[in-house]
Amino acid sequence: MQNFYYNIPTQIYFGKGQIENLGKNLKKLSDRALLVYGGGSIKKSGLYDKVTEQLEKAGIVWQELSGVEPNPRIESVRKGVEICREHGLGAVLAVGGGSAIDCAKVVAGGACYDGDSWDLVMDRTKITKALPVVSVLTLAATGSEMDEYAVISDLGKNIKKGTGNEFTKPVFSIMDPEYTFSVPEKQTAAGTADIMSHTFENYFTEEKGAYLQARFCEGILKTCIQYAPVAMKEPENYEARANLMWSASMAINGLCSYGENTAWSVHPMEHELSAFYDITHGVGLAILTPYWMEYVLNETTLWKFVEYGKNVWGIFDGTDMEIAREAILKTREFFNSIGLPSTLREVGIDKTHLDEMAQKAAEGGTQKGFMPLDKEDVKKILEMAL
Amino acid sequence: MQNFYYNIPTQIYFGKGQIENLGKNLKKLSDRALLVYGGGSIKKSGLYDKVTEQLEKAGIVWQELSGVEPNPRIESVRKGVEICREHGLGAVLAVGGGSAIDCAKVVAGGACYDGDSWDLVMDRTKITKALPVVSVLTLAATGSEMDEYAVISDLGKNIKKGTGNEFTKPVFSIMDPEYTFSVPEKQTAAGTADIMSHTFENYFTEEKGAYLQARFCEGILKTCIQYAPVAMKEPENYEARANLMWSASMAINGLCSYGENTAWSVHPMEHELSAFYDITHGVGLAILTPYWMEYVLNETTLWKFVEYGKNVWGIFDGTDMEIAREAILKTREFFNSIGLPSTLREVGIDKTHLDEMAQKAAEGGTQKGFMPLDKEDVKKILEMAL
Repeated sequence: MQNFYYNIPTQIYFGKGQIENLGKNLKKLSDRALLVYGGGSIKKSGLYDKVTEQLEKAGIVWQELSGVEPNPRIESVRKGVEICREHGLGAVLAVGGGSAIDCAKVVAGGACYDGDSWDLVMDRTKITKALPVVSVLTLAATGSEMDEYAVISDLGKNIKKGTGNEFTKPVFSIMDPEYTFSVPEKQTAAGTADIMSHTFENYFTEEKGAYLQARFCEGILKTCIQYAPVAMKEPENYEARANLMWSASMAINGLCSYGENTAWSVHPMEHELSAFYDITHGVGLAILTPYWMEYVLNETTLWKFVEYGKNVWGIFDGTDMEIAREAILKTREFFNSIGLPSTLREVGIDKTHLDEMAQKAAEGGTQKGFMPLDKEDVKKILEMAL
Repeated sequence: MQNFYYNIPTQIYFGKGQIENLGKNLKKLSDRALLVYGGGSIKKSGLYDKVTEQLEKAGIVWQELSGVEPNPRIESVRKGVEICREHGLGAVLAVGGGSAIDCAKVVAGGACYDGDSWDLVMDRTKITKALPVVSVLTLAATGSEMDEYAVISDLGKNIKKGTGNEFTKPVFSIMDPEYTFSVPEKQTAAGTADIMSHTFENYFTEEKGAYLQARFCEGILKTCIQYAPVAMKEPENYEARANLMWSASMAINGLCSYGENTAWSVHPMEHELSAFYDITHGVGLAILTPYWMEYVLNETTLWKFVEYGKNVWGIFDGTDMEIAREAILKTREFFNSIGLPSTLREVGIDKTHLDEMAQKAAEGGTQKGFMPLDKEDVKKILEMAL
């Protein structure tokens, strides 16, 4: 096990009706807040009313940044920063999924930064303070409600990049599984793929000594496999929604990566897909993951796939290599079973930008992964996925 | 899944050489500290020198409370409180296992309380503030390094009772697995039983919907089963010591109990054993656990034992009841295999106080457990264990 520094300060109010804790706790941070959200879905669902009622009751004055994109753009961040400055706001409240929260984090940093917010995306060390961030979660996926990370896109530059540090961790988050009842099937599936991918990125590591963390990863994977189909069939199944929601937070808050030298592989590849084609992140991950697994499976990495096959899928028969291959097959079949595609063509991606995307992915992190992948490796994986 | 409020603020510096983070971070809390430890083992191991070097380098003035008992007594707490007051100390630094840390927590509360510290043991809500607590851990067992709990005894009254609340959570803890290399075989085994018992207390719950938490519990149990024998055979096996150490913290910091209405059963029983006979806590737990399992196994609780048998022990053959019984047998065999006894007689406990202990255990919490146990139930379990 590698040395690590554990620091997960975000407090979570989890469960039905926890919105009641929003106003009074936000008020302790500031009585002037920026409310950040996406499209109109929180208005349609009634959540907007619940949130603003909390703000009003607590005597919090707020401004709004709405229309944050599914892959949040730097333009939205800049707009948010401007509103914070203009109105002297002291906290940023995101209501939504990962996009709204990610945007809120960089707005929070940008409001305390003397320069263009894009600097903070390109260099996370430039975030040296931030307004306190609070979130009300409506989607089980990115885990942004309990970690420091934010992914922001500049579509003009075809750049989608992660940033964030200790200053951008939410102070607290409200996680009410009922707010995810209205998440459509497709988004539920894509969110699950995102949770599983975060877990895979932590799980597939050359570190053999972080035994407990590997078992936690398996627990999250089993939970996704158990409950995603339930949530899709019965969108108002509280137990399924609750378990998916909590899994999303646990997959990426550090618990599964502490003690390992994790270096993510599939995410840097997918980031290029959605930077070039603006596809849904989780869909891209579901497509790429099984091909990535096939590509990196070899005699050296075999042990980890056997562990995966046995402990997650309960495959005990056959040679080690057979168990590993079966586990990869099961992974693809699972994604298919929840309606996720297996090829890039299905989401409208062809050969056009393959070379360029492979180049950027290699620059973006794949060379440090479980099995380091250079540009040619990435290109081969993308070609397999076509 | 039940509603919960997640709040684990303790920061952890985990791994080799992390002691380097002690002085500078403690200094941020106070430059006057009480150093709390047990017998002379930290002097023999050289840890005392490392700690005091850190204090000196950071310019921290300290007083000492040494000789804290394995089951820390209220007299030690009172002594610590007195020293804090007399010298105007602003933080409490525990170096040791759960006993030193538990004692430090109540000292920290007592120093801010206008009255006798025993009040804080009898009523945790009386702790309304506390000096900041910091720990350097030397034993993987109680998890006190990352939670709020403290168990204090008044042997004169035959009372051993848990207390603690948000104010007694350590601000940070140093967890260097190398400090546990010198833990003798017996203590390693007893510590493992303690970790597993914390996990069992969270795992055996009537709540079926906290699926993820149950998988986390299984991960901790598997880790203990995997590494306790290794650590006993090779006391300087870093990987084994690291995994046991991290498991101890995770078993009881809340991660495994959030979302469940856990109510502990075996701990209240064991607390009476060690209150009356001053036996090692983990040894008492190892003796009682399998008998408790046998006693509470019935048609209603069967599902949980089947889950346990399959997911922890890999038992898939037989009827559900056979799987459950086999799992209980495996549990006892495992404890025996690491040198822990199976009967109360082996630790010098006979019928003398059975009735009284059963009465106190029932008052102490067993009536709220996975399967509520009244005095007669507890007595039967204790008789089974004789």
